[in-house]
Amino acid sequence: MSYDANNIFAKILRGEIPCHKVYEDADAIVFMDVMPQSPGHTLVLPKAQSRNLLDADPAVLAKIIPLVQKVAIAAKSAFNADGISIAQFNETAGGQTVFHLHFHVIPRYEGKPLNLHARNMEEGSVLTANAEKLKAALA
Amino acid sequence: MSYDANNIFAKILRGEIPCHKVYEDADAIVFMDVMPQSPGHTLVLPKAQSRNLLDADPAVLAKIIPLVQKVAIAAKSAFNADGISIAQFNETAGGQTVFHLHFHVIPRYEGKPLNLHARNMEEGSVLTANAEKLKAALA
Repeated sequence: MSYDANNIFAKILRGEIPCHKVYEDADAIVFMDVMPQSPGHTLVLPKAQSRNLLDADPAVLAKIIPLVQKVAIAAKSAFNADGISIAQFNETAGGQTVFHLHFHVIPRYEGKPLNLHARNMEEGSVLTANAEKLKAALA
Repeated sequence: MSYDANNIFAKILRGEIPCHKVYEDADAIVFMDVMPQSPGHTLVLPKAQSRNLLDADPAVLAKIIPLVQKVAIAAKSAFNADGISIAQFNETAGGQTVFHLHFHVIPRYEGKPLNLHARNMEEGSVLTANAEKLKAALA
């Protein structure tokens, strides 16, 4: 399995399509999932190209996971969540729908099951507002 | 939220209760989930005490994630999986049932939904055989 440079996250990384950005540095980008499984569902991506966890550079993983943690802590606070689920999917059978390595940070609430993965598009205004909330919590 | 040293994984780490061990080093332990969501469902834990991702030392995270990757690659091969889902749950609302940081490595198969989390105990003989398969793939 190889990396397809035309996947939608590669296009976002090249600035060819927009995203509801929360954070960016030389190595990583953080933006809102447009089909959230829960309000505040956020994606954390290394910029380095890999299809998923299976072909990633371990040094890239070691660098991205503390950022996943920071985003998880900020999201729990920003969205008043009771818990956080982290998910990372590999290959179609593993739940992956976009083939650039990414970590899902999903705010969770007592007694509320998740929406299905990658099904319903959220309103842009909601995503923008959530990105701002998360940005503030990260700052 | 603080760390409870009597959680079941702390007891496994102290050798007070057994596990179907796959791998152990100074920093980490890998063993089979006794209530697998899919055959070959494996857990990767740092030995360092933290309740979950939210209170973990980022240096511990940076060290454990390459091991999660190794186990994911080995599990895909050992269990002839089509994909791998990684899950890491924080607090009860986030899906967490044992309060010592752990990563789930879950082999996935085309068209097969997951079993529910933490519901049905697998036979010891099956877990032992799966631990041996995974050990061989990791070696």
